Amino acid sequence: MMHKEWTHLGEEDGPNIKLFDVRYHHMLNPRNGKSEKMLVLHGNDAVNVLAITPDEHLVLVKQYRFGIAEDTLELPGGLMNNQEDSQLAAARELREETGFSGKVWTYLGKVPANPVFMDAYVHHWLLEDAVKTHDTSLDDGEMIEVVMMPLSDLKQHLTAGAFTHPHTNAALLRYFIHTHQL
Amino acid sequence: MMHKEWTHLGEEDGPNIKLFDVRYHHMLNPRNGKSEKMLVLHGNDAVNVLAITPDEHLVLVKQYRFGIAEDTLELPGGLMNNQEDSQLAAARELREETGFSGKVWTYLGKVPANPVFMDAYVHHWLLEDAVKTHDTSLDDGEMIEVVMMPLSDLKQHLTAGAFTHPHTNAALLRYFIHTHQL
Repeated sequence: MMHKEWTHLGEEDGPNIKLFDVRYHHMLNPRNGKSEKMLVLHGNDAVNVLAITPDEHLVLVKQYRFGIAEDTLELPGGLMNNQEDSQLAAARELREETGFSGKVWTYLGKVPANPVFMDAYVHHWLLEDAVKTHDTSLDDGEMIEVVMMPLSDLKQHLTAGAFTHPHTNAALLRYFIHTHQL
Repeated sequence: MMHKEWTHLGEEDGPNIKLFDVRYHHMLNPRNGKSEKMLVLHGNDAVNVLAITPDEHLVLVKQYRFGIAEDTLELPGGLMNNQEDSQLAAARELREETGFSGKVWTYLGKVPANPVFMDAYVHHWLLEDAVKTHDTSLDDGEMIEVVMMPLSDLKQHLTAGAFTHPHTNAALLRYFIHTHQL
């Protein structure tokens, strides 16, 4: 069945809705010959960072998220600037949101932000020996509290459902694989 | 710092962009007294299902995803209908996409679809003793191939980055916790 492929019939622009440019792709379904209009939100890739201190704490950020109208606990991260390298973006976002920095970086892979209707990816970075070196530097639309979590408590917090961002959970899964805990 | 809270100044409707109603929330940042216009995409909650057969295979779906213009390997799932119970939605989506059904259901928790700019949640369900009982029943905009993966191969595929949907990875993390593999 999968040898048949969707045919891309054309595209049309939708509105810019802040954060994203809306686009519609007209796609012909080879299974039934019907054309469907598919939503694609075009935006920049993003990064998130697992930053671990020499005394085995994970650097997290707590902030109010407007989508769900609640505070979340997440890995630091954010959108990459245009043409920005993902490691540099990871270092920049970590520094801006938490004031931490460091040199021992490992790429943990990427995941689509949401492959159904977004074209962006989220790049996961691990930073070991993270140290507090800077003041934080927040955007006008941000208010962030830094939370230091002992690595030894991480699984307990996961079990309790402490992390409410799927990109944080996707990065943690990569981290457990990378460190052979899975 | 976090005792100060954002003030919700008002809302305005944006366009309906297919899948979502666009809304903007005007929020006053207590840190700097500045007002920001925040994007919120309003849509229904979704479900995904870890369905495991009596011979220890995981039921997966492979499909072309229009956001990233590539095939993905994911857990079966999809949007809940209005007022639909999440377990019934999980059973319906599993049956429609794969033809599998069963009786031994366990709720694995939920995660925000994307707390930054979406108000929906994704509910994770585990189905044990899943059996192929129905023909599939796809929407006009779907073409899906069912993939049976031996559970014993799951971590190897995870290491290889086989799963390219963050909601699938979030559900797998819950599954590893639930089964004490983490």
